[in-house]
Amino acid sequence: MRIAELSRISGVPVPTIKYYLRENLLPPGELTSPNQASYGDLHVRRLRLVRALVDLAGVPVAQVKEVLDGLDSDTLSLHDQIGRAHRAITARRQLASHPPEAATDAATAQVEALIDSRGWKVAPDAPALTTLIETIAVMRSLDQDHLVGLLETYADAVEKFTTLELAAVTSRPDRATPDQIAESVIIGTILGETLISTLRLLSQESTSAHRWTQPPGTGTTTP
Amino acid sequence: MRIAELSRISGVPVPTIKYYLRENLLPPGELTSPNQASYGDLHVRRLRLVRALVDLAGVPVAQVKEVLDGLDSDTLSLHDQIGRAHRAITARRQLASHPPEAATDAATAQVEALIDSRGWKVAPDAPALTTLIETIAVMRSLDQDHLVGLLETYADAVEKFTTLELAAVTSRPDRATPDQIAESVIIGTILGETLISTLRLLSQESTSAHRWTQPPGTGTTTP
Repeated sequence: MRIAELSRISGVPVPTIKYYLRENLLPPGELTSPNQASYGDLHVRRLRLVRALVDLAGVPVAQVKEVLDGLDSDTLSLHDQIGRAHRAITARRQLASHPPEAATDAATAQVEALIDSRGWKVAPDAPALTTLIETIAVMRSLDQDHLVGLLETYADAVEKFTTLELAAVTSRPDRATPDQIAESVIIGTILGETLISTLRLLSQESTSAHRWTQPPGTGTTTP
Repeated sequence: MRIAELSRISGVPVPTIKYYLRENLLPPGELTSPNQASYGDLHVRRLRLVRALVDLAGVPVAQVKEVLDGLDSDTLSLHDQIGRAHRAITARRQLASHPPEAATDAATAQVEALIDSRGWKVAPDAPALTTLIETIAVMRSLDQDHLVGLLETYADAVEKFTTLELAAVTSRPDRATPDQIAESVIIGTILGETLISTLRLLSQESTSAHRWTQPPGTGTTTP
Protein backbone atom coordinates (compact mmCIF):
# COMPACT_ATOMS: atom_id res chain seq x y z
CA MET A 1 0.00 0.00 0.00
CA ARG A 2 1.02 3.61 -0.47
CA ILE A 3 1.60 6.03 2.41
CA ALA A 4 -1.89 7.58 2.07
CA GLU A 5 -3.47 4.16 2.55
CA LEU A 6 -1.13 3.42 5.49
CA SER A 7 -2.29 6.69 7.03
CA ARG A 8 -5.96 5.82 6.52
CA ILE A 9 -5.70 2.36 8.06
CA SER A 10 -3.49 3.37 10.99
CA GLY A 11 -5.20 6.70 11.66
CA VAL A 12 -1.76 8.34 11.81
CA PRO A 13 -1.45 11.50 9.65
CA VAL A 14 0.97 11.31 6.68
CA PRO A 15 3.34 14.01 8.08
CA THR A 16 3.62 12.03 11.33
CA ILE A 17 4.38 8.84 9.40
CA LYS A 18 7.09 10.69 7.47
CA TYR A 19 8.52 11.97 10.75
CA TYR A 20 8.62 8.43 12.15
CA LEU A 21 10.33 7.22 8.95
CA ARG A 22 12.97 9.96 9.24
CA GLU A 23 13.52 9.09 12.92
CA ASN A 24 13.74 5.36 12.10
CA LEU A 25 10.81 4.54 14.37
CA LEU A 26 9.34 2.88 11.30
CA PRO A 27 11.35 0.81 8.81
CA PRO A 28 11.43 2.20 5.25
CA GLY A 29 8.90 0.92 2.75
CA GLU A 30 9.89 -1.03 -0.33
CA LEU A 31 10.82 1.38 -3.12
CA THR A 32 8.57 0.86 -6.15
CA SER A 33 9.96 3.88 -7.97
CA PRO A 34 12.56 6.50 -7.02
CA ASN A 35 9.83 8.60 -5.35
CA GLN A 36 7.37 6.02 -4.18
CA ALA A 37 7.45 3.35 -1.53
CA SER A 38 5.11 0.54 -0.66
CA TYR A 39 4.14 -0.40 2.89
CA GLY A 40 2.71 -3.56 4.39
CA ASP A 41 0.99 -5.02 7.44
CA LEU A 42 4.21 -4.86 9.44
CA HIS A 43 4.15 -1.08 9.05
CA VAL A 44 0.54 -0.90 10.25
CA ARG A 45 1.46 -2.99 13.27
CA ARG A 46 4.58 -0.99 14.11
CA LEU A 47 2.67 2.29 13.79
CA ARG A 48 0.04 0.98 16.19
CA LEU A 49 2.75 0.04 18.68
CA VAL A 50 4.42 3.45 18.40
CA ARG A 51 1.13 5.31 18.91
CA ALA A 52 0.23 3.12 21.88
CA LEU A 53 3.56 3.79 23.58
CA VAL A 54 3.40 7.52 22.87
CA ASP A 55 -0.29 8.16 23.51
CA LEU A 56 -1.53 5.52 25.95
CA ALA A 57 1.64 5.13 27.98
CA GLY A 58 2.89 8.71 27.63
CA VAL A 59 6.40 7.67 26.55
CA PRO A 60 8.41 10.45 24.83
CA VAL A 61 9.23 9.72 21.16
CA ALA A 62 13.01 9.60 21.81
CA GLN A 63 12.46 6.89 24.41
CA VAL A 64 10.15 4.94 22.10
CA LYS A 65 13.00 4.86 19.62
CA GLU A 66 15.36 3.47 22.29
CA VAL A 67 12.86 0.75 23.11
CA LEU A 68 12.25 -0.20 19.48
CA ASP A 69 15.99 -0.18 18.69
CA GLY A 70 16.39 -2.55 21.62
CA LEU A 71 13.68 -4.85 20.29
CA ASP A 72 15.26 -4.85 16.82
CA SER A 73 18.76 -5.50 18.18
CA ASP A 74 20.38 -8.91 17.90
CA THR A 75 22.96 -8.30 20.60
CA LEU A 76 21.11 -6.76 23.54
CA SER A 77 20.05 -9.15 26.30
CA LEU A 78 16.38 -9.14 27.22
CA HIS A 79 17.40 -7.66 30.56
CA ASP A 80 18.94 -4.69 28.75
CA GLN A 81 15.86 -4.34 26.56
CA ILE A 82 13.69 -4.27 29.69
CA GLY A 83 16.04 -1.65 31.12
CA ARG A 84 15.24 0.55 28.11
CA ALA A 85 11.51 0.07 28.68
CA HIS A 86 11.97 1.04 32.32
CA ARG A 87 13.87 4.19 31.39
CA ALA A 88 11.09 4.98 28.91
CA ILE A 89 8.45 4.74 31.63
CA THR A 90 10.41 6.79 34.12
CA ALA A 91 11.51 9.38 31.54
CA ARG A 92 8.29 11.35 31.97
CA ARG A 93 9.07 11.85 35.65
CA GLN A 94 11.50 14.38 37.03
CA LEU A 95 12.92 14.75 40.47
CA ALA A 96 12.45 18.29 41.64
CA SER A 97 10.16 18.10 44.66
CA HIS A 98 13.01 18.81 47.09
CA PRO A 99 11.67 17.07 50.14
CA PRO A 100 13.58 17.83 53.37
CA GLU A 101 16.81 15.86 53.73
CA ALA A 102 15.58 14.00 56.82
CA ALA A 103 12.53 12.75 54.90
CA THR A 104 14.76 11.57 52.04
CA ASP A 105 17.09 9.76 54.45
CA ALA A 106 14.15 8.01 56.10
CA ALA A 107 12.68 7.07 52.71
CA THR A 108 16.02 5.72 51.50
CA ALA A 109 16.34 3.52 54.60
CA GLN A 110 12.77 2.29 54.19
CA VAL A 111 13.26 1.38 50.50
CA GLU A 112 16.58 -0.35 51.21
CA ALA A 113 14.93 -2.40 53.96
CA LEU A 114 12.05 -3.32 51.65
CA ILE A 115 14.35 -4.43 48.81
CA ASP A 116 16.48 -6.33 51.29
CA SER A 117 13.59 -8.13 52.95
CA ARG A 118 12.22 -9.21 49.58
CA GLY A 119 15.57 -10.27 48.20
CA TRP A 120 15.13 -8.06 45.15
CA LYS A 121 18.21 -7.77 42.94
CA VAL A 122 18.14 -4.14 41.87
CA ALA A 123 20.91 -2.01 40.37
CA PRO A 124 21.79 1.00 42.54
CA ASP A 125 21.14 3.28 39.54
CA ALA A 126 17.76 1.73 38.64
CA PRO A 127 15.66 4.62 37.33
CA ALA A 128 12.65 3.62 39.42
CA LEU A 129 14.68 3.63 42.63
CA THR A 130 15.23 7.36 43.01
CA THR A 131 11.64 8.09 41.97
CA LEU A 132 10.30 5.68 44.59
CA ILE A 133 12.48 7.22 47.29
CA GLU A 134 11.52 10.77 46.38
CA THR A 135 7.82 9.89 46.24
CA ILE A 136 7.94 8.39 49.74
CA ALA A 137 9.94 11.36 51.04
CA VAL A 138 7.44 13.82 49.59
CA MET A 139 4.51 11.87 51.04
CA ARG A 140 6.18 11.96 54.46
CA SER A 141 6.93 15.66 54.20
CA LEU A 142 3.24 16.23 53.36
CA ASP A 143 2.22 14.34 56.54
CA GLN A 144 0.94 11.33 54.62
CA ASP A 145 2.78 8.64 56.57
CA HIS A 146 -0.42 6.56 56.62
CA LEU A 147 -0.17 6.32 52.80
CA VAL A 148 3.44 5.21 53.03
CA GLY A 149 2.14 2.41 55.24
CA LEU A 150 0.61 0.84 52.12
CA LEU A 151 4.05 0.16 50.65
CA GLU A 152 4.18 -3.50 51.65
CA THR A 153 0.68 -4.10 50.27
CA TYR A 154 1.71 -2.60 46.95
CA ALA A 155 4.96 -4.60 46.96
CA ASP A 156 3.08 -7.86 47.61
CA ALA A 157 0.81 -7.12 44.66
CA VAL A 158 3.54 -6.17 42.19
CA GLU A 159 5.50 -9.32 43.05
CA LYS A 160 2.43 -11.32 42.15
CA PHE A 161 2.04 -9.28 38.94
CA THR A 162 5.63 -10.01 37.94
CA THR A 163 5.23 -13.75 38.52
CA LEU A 164 2.03 -13.93 36.49
CA GLU A 165 3.25 -11.59 33.74
CA LEU A 166 6.34 -13.75 33.37
CA ALA A 167 4.20 -16.88 33.15
CA ALA A 168 1.90 -15.20 30.62
CA VAL A 169 4.71 -14.27 28.23
CA THR A 170 6.86 -17.38 28.58
CA SER A 171 4.11 -20.02 28.52
CA ARG A 172 2.20 -18.92 25.45
CA PRO A 173 0.35 -21.78 23.84
CA ASP A 174 1.55 -20.58 20.42
CA ARG A 175 5.19 -21.38 21.34
CA ALA A 176 6.49 -17.89 20.78
CA THR A 177 9.98 -17.25 19.44
CA PRO A 178 12.49 -15.36 21.63
CA ASP A 179 11.80 -12.23 19.56
CA GLN A 180 8.08 -12.53 20.17
CA ILE A 181 8.66 -13.10 23.87
CA ALA A 182 10.85 -10.00 24.03
CA GLU A 183 8.13 -7.95 22.33
CA SER A 184 5.52 -9.31 24.74
CA VAL A 185 7.67 -8.45 27.74
CA ILE A 186 8.18 -4.89 26.53
CA ILE A 187 4.51 -4.32 25.64
CA GLY A 188 3.42 -5.93 28.90
CA THR A 189 5.81 -3.78 30.91
CA ILE A 190 4.73 -0.50 29.37
CA LEU A 191 1.05 -0.99 28.51
CA GLY A 192 0.45 -3.22 31.55
CA GLU A 193 1.05 -0.13 33.65
CA THR A 194 -1.77 1.64 31.79
CA LEU A 195 -4.08 -1.30 32.50
CA ILE A 196 -3.28 -1.25 36.21
CA SER A 197 -3.59 2.52 36.42
CA THR A 198 -6.97 2.72 34.68
CA LEU A 199 -8.43 -0.23 36.60
CA ARG A 200 -7.34 1.40 39.85
CA LEU A 201 -9.09 4.63 38.90
CA LEU A 202 -12.30 2.77 38.03
CA SER A 203 -12.26 0.86 41.31
CA GLN A 204 -11.68 4.11 43.19
CA GLU A 205 -14.42 5.89 41.30
CA SER A 206 -16.88 3.17 42.20
CA THR A 207 -16.02 3.29 45.91
CA SER A 208 -16.12 7.07 45.85
CA ALA A 209 -19.51 7.10 44.08
CA HIS A 210 -20.94 4.95 46.87
CA ARG A 211 -19.51 7.03 49.71
CA TRP A 212 -18.68 10.55 48.73
CA THR A 213 -21.19 12.06 46.32
CA GLN A 214 -22.93 14.32 48.86
CA PRO A 215 -21.73 17.94 49.01
CA PRO A 216 -19.66 18.92 52.06
CA GLY A 217 -21.47 19.67 55.30
CA THR A 218 -24.74 17.93 54.51
CA GLY A 219 -25.04 16.26 57.87
CA THR A 220 -22.96 13.09 57.72
CA THR A 221 -19.89 12.66 59.85
CA THR A 222 -17.69 11.17 57.14
CA PRO A 223 -16.57 13.54 54.39
CA MET B 1 10.10 34.71 54.68
CA ARG B 2 10.76 36.50 51.40
CA ILE B 3 10.43 34.86 47.99
CA ALA B 4 14.20 34.23 47.72
CA GLU B 5 14.12 32.24 50.95
CA LEU B 6 10.99 30.38 49.83
CA SER B 7 12.88 29.46 46.65
CA ARG B 8 15.90 28.27 48.62
CA ILE B 9 13.90 26.05 50.98
CA SER B 10 11.59 24.61 48.33
CA GLY B 11 14.22 24.27 45.60
CA VAL B 12 11.79 25.93 43.17
CA PRO B 13 13.31 28.82 41.16
CA VAL B 14 11.90 32.30 41.84
CA PRO B 15 10.49 32.74 38.28
CA THR B 16 8.61 29.44 38.66
CA ILE B 17 7.20 30.54 42.02
CA LYS B 18 6.05 33.82 40.42
CA TYR B 19 4.42 31.83 37.62
CA TYR B 20 2.58 29.66 40.16
CA LEU B 21 1.45 32.81 42.02
CA ARG B 22 0.10 34.33 38.80
CA GLU B 23 -1.70 31.08 37.96
CA ASN B 24 -3.12 30.84 41.50
CA LEU B 25 -1.47 27.50 42.12
CA LEU B 26 0.01 29.15 45.19
CA PRO B 27 -1.93 31.58 47.44
CA PRO B 28 -0.51 35.12 47.58
CA GLY B 29 1.90 35.99 50.37
CA GLU B 30 1.07 38.54 53.02
CA LEU B 31 1.94 42.02 51.75
CA THR B 32 4.52 43.67 53.99
CA SER B 33 4.95 46.65 51.67
CA PRO B 34 3.42 47.49 48.27
CA ASN B 35 6.22 45.58 46.52
CA GLN B 36 7.06 42.90 49.02
CA ALA B 37 5.24 39.84 50.30
CA SER B 38 5.99 37.42 53.08
CA TYR B 39 5.55 33.65 52.76
CA GLY B 40 5.16 30.92 55.35
CA ASP B 41 5.30 27.17 55.89
CA LEU B 42 2.00 26.69 54.09
CA HIS B 43 3.63 28.04 50.94
CA VAL B 44 6.56 25.64 51.29
CA ARG B 45 4.13 22.76 51.70
CA ARG B 46 1.94 23.78 48.77
CA LEU B 47 4.99 24.22 46.52
CA ARG B 48 6.16 20.73 47.45
CA LEU B 49 2.74 19.33 46.56
CA VAL B 50 2.67 21.16 43.21
CA ARG B 51 6.16 19.93 42.27
CA ALA B 52 5.30 16.37 43.27
CA LEU B 53 2.16 16.36 41.12
CA VAL B 54 3.95 17.96 38.16
CA ASP B 55 7.28 16.12 38.35
CA LEU B 56 6.70 12.78 40.05
CA ALA B 57 3.20 12.12 38.75
CA GLY B 58 3.59 13.90 35.39
CA VAL B 59 0.38 15.92 35.77
CA PRO B 60 0.16 18.98 33.46
CA VAL B 61 0.12 22.33 35.34
CA ALA B 62 -3.40 23.18 34.16
CA GLN B 63 -4.67 19.94 35.67
CA VAL B 64 -2.79 20.53 38.91
CA LYS B 65 -4.66 23.81 39.19
CA GLU B 66 -8.00 22.01 38.73
CA VAL B 67 -7.08 19.55 41.48
CA LEU B 68 -5.94 22.27 43.91
CA ASP B 69 -9.01 24.43 43.18
CA GLY B 70 -11.08 21.36 44.01
CA LEU B 71 -9.23 20.85 47.29
CA ASP B 72 -9.70 24.50 48.22
CA SER B 73 -13.39 24.51 47.30
CA ASP B 74 -16.08 24.45 49.99
CA THR B 75 -18.83 23.23 47.71
CA LEU B 76 -17.38 20.34 45.69
CA SER B 77 -18.12 16.86 47.00
CA LEU B 78 -15.14 14.63 47.63
CA HIS B 79 -16.35 12.49 44.75
CA ASP B 80 -16.07 15.49 42.42
CA GLN B 81 -12.62 16.31 43.79
CA ILE B 82 -11.53 12.74 43.09
CA GLY B 83 -12.97 13.10 39.60
CA ARG B 84 -10.61 16.04 39.06
CA ALA B 85 -7.66 13.96 40.27
CA HIS B 86 -8.66 11.19 37.86
CA ARG B 87 -8.85 13.61 34.94
CA ALA B 88 -5.43 14.93 35.96
CA ILE B 89 -3.92 11.45 35.83
CA THR B 90 -5.52 10.57 32.52
CA ALA B 91 -4.79 13.99 30.95
CA ARG B 92 -1.31 12.88 29.91
CA ARG B 93 -2.78 10.08 27.83
CA GLN B 94 -4.33 10.48 24.42
CA LEU B 95 -6.37 8.12 22.38
CA ALA B 96 -4.90 7.87 18.92
CA SER B 97 -3.76 4.28 18.51
CA HIS B 98 -6.66 3.46 16.19
CA PRO B 99 -6.96 -0.24 16.88
CA PRO B 100 -9.22 -2.12 14.44
CA GLU B 101 -12.93 -1.73 15.16
CA ALA B 102 -13.40 -5.41 15.91
CA ALA B 103 -10.68 -5.27 18.60
CA THR B 104 -12.33 -2.20 20.15
CA ASP B 105 -15.73 -3.90 20.17
CA ALA B 106 -14.27 -6.99 21.85
CA ALA B 107 -12.43 -4.84 24.40
CA THR B 108 -15.57 -2.83 25.17
CA ALA B 109 -17.54 -6.02 25.80
CA GLN B 110 -14.76 -7.39 28.01
CA VAL B 111 -14.56 -4.21 30.12
CA GLU B 112 -18.34 -4.01 30.47
CA ALA B 113 -18.43 -7.63 31.64
CA LEU B 114 -15.64 -6.98 34.13
CA ILE B 115 -17.32 -3.88 35.59
CA ASP B 116 -20.61 -5.75 35.75
CA SER B 117 -19.21 -8.83 37.45
CA ARG B 118 -17.50 -6.68 40.10
CA GLY B 119 -20.51 -4.44 40.65
CA TRP B 120 -18.43 -1.33 40.02
CA LYS B 121 -20.43 1.88 39.79
CA VAL B 122 -18.65 3.78 37.02
CA ALA B 123 -19.88 6.77 35.00
CA PRO B 124 -20.07 6.03 31.25
CA ASP B 125 -17.80 9.02 30.62
CA ALA B 126 -15.20 8.08 33.24
CA PRO B 127 -11.86 9.20 31.78
CA ALA B 128 -10.15 5.91 32.63
CA LEU B 129 -12.80 3.88 30.84
CA THR B 130 -11.94 4.77 27.26
CA THR B 131 -8.22 4.48 27.98
CA LEU B 132 -8.68 1.01 29.44
CA ILE B 133 -10.74 -0.11 26.44
CA GLU B 134 -8.26 1.28 23.93
CA THR B 135 -5.29 -0.28 25.75
CA ILE B 136 -6.93 -3.71 25.68
CA ALA B 137 -7.90 -3.26 22.02
CA VAL B 138 -4.33 -2.31 21.10
CA MET B 139 -2.92 -5.25 23.03
CA ARG B 140 -5.28 -7.58 21.18
CA SER B 141 -4.42 -6.05 17.81
CA LEU B 142 -0.72 -6.61 18.62
CA ASP B 143 -1.41 -10.31 19.32
CA GLN B 144 -0.95 -9.93 23.06
CA ASP B 145 -4.14 -11.66 24.19
CA HIS B 146 -2.13 -13.51 26.85
CA LEU B 147 -1.41 -10.12 28.49
CA VAL B 148 -5.10 -9.21 28.40
CA GLY B 149 -5.63 -12.42 30.35
CA LEU B 150 -4.05 -10.69 33.36
CA LEU B 151 -6.95 -8.25 33.61
CA GLU B 152 -8.75 -10.09 36.42
CA THR B 153 -5.52 -10.38 38.43
CA TYR B 154 -4.96 -6.65 38.11
CA ALA B 155 -8.60 -5.94 38.99
CA ASP B 156 -8.40 -8.13 42.13
CA ALA B 157 -5.32 -6.23 43.24
CA VAL B 158 -6.69 -2.73 42.62
CA GLU B 159 -9.88 -3.57 44.53
CA LYS B 160 -7.71 -4.53 47.47
CA PHE B 161 -5.70 -1.30 47.03
CA THR B 162 -8.89 0.77 47.09
CA THR B 163 -10.14 -0.89 50.28
CA LEU B 164 -6.84 -0.42 52.10
CA GLU B 165 -6.26 3.12 50.76
CA LEU B 166 -9.73 4.05 51.98
CA ALA B 167 -9.00 2.57 55.40
CA ALA B 168 -5.65 4.36 55.52
CA VAL B 169 -7.11 7.80 54.89
CA THR B 170 -10.32 7.49 56.91
CA SER B 171 -8.91 5.75 60.00
CA ARG B 172 -5.97 8.00 60.73
CA PRO B 173 -5.00 7.93 64.38
CA ASP B 174 -4.70 11.73 64.33
CA ARG B 175 -8.47 12.09 63.70
CA ALA B 176 -8.07 14.06 60.50
CA THR B 177 -10.56 16.77 59.53
CA PRO B 178 -12.63 16.33 56.34
CA ASP B 179 -10.26 18.74 54.57
CA GLN B 180 -7.25 16.67 55.60
CA ILE B 181 -8.97 13.49 54.51
CA ALA B 182 -9.73 15.05 51.13
CA GLU B 183 -6.08 16.05 50.72
CA SER B 184 -4.95 12.54 51.67
CA VAL B 185 -7.34 10.97 49.17
CA ILE B 186 -6.07 13.19 46.37
CA ILE B 187 -2.37 12.71 47.20
CA GLY B 188 -2.91 8.98 47.64
CA THR B 189 -4.72 8.74 44.33
CA ILE B 190 -2.07 10.56 42.32
CA LEU B 191 1.21 9.73 44.09
CA GLY B 192 0.04 6.23 45.02
CA GLU B 193 0.17 5.46 41.32
CA THR B 194 3.83 6.47 41.24
CA LEU B 195 4.53 4.15 44.20
CA ILE B 196 2.84 1.21 42.48
CA SER B 197 4.54 1.92 39.15
CA THR B 198 8.05 2.19 40.57
CA LEU B 199 7.67 -0.87 42.82
CA ARG B 200 6.47 -2.87 39.82
CA LEU B 201 9.53 -1.83 37.81
CA LEU B 202 11.87 -2.82 40.65
CA SER B 203 10.21 -6.21 41.05
CA GLN B 204 10.45 -6.76 37.27
CA GLU B 205 14.07 -5.68 37.20
CA SER B 206 14.92 -8.17 39.91
CA THR B 207 13.21 -11.05 38.12
CA SER B 208 14.79 -10.02 34.83
CA ALA B 209 18.26 -9.78 36.41
CA HIS B 210 17.92 -13.38 37.59
CA ARG B 211 16.71 -14.75 34.26
CA TRP B 212 17.63 -12.61 31.33
CA THR B 213 21.07 -11.06 31.60
CA GLN B 214 22.78 -13.34 29.11
CA PRO B 215 23.12 -12.03 25.52
CA PRO B 216 20.83 -13.64 22.93
CA GLY B 217 21.83 -17.02 21.51
CA THR B 218 24.25 -18.03 24.24
CA GLY B 219 22.99 -21.54 24.50
CA THR B 220 19.94 -21.50 26.75
CA THR B 221 16.51 -22.34 25.40
CA THR B 222 14.70 -19.50 27.17
CA PRO B 223 15.36 -15.99 25.92
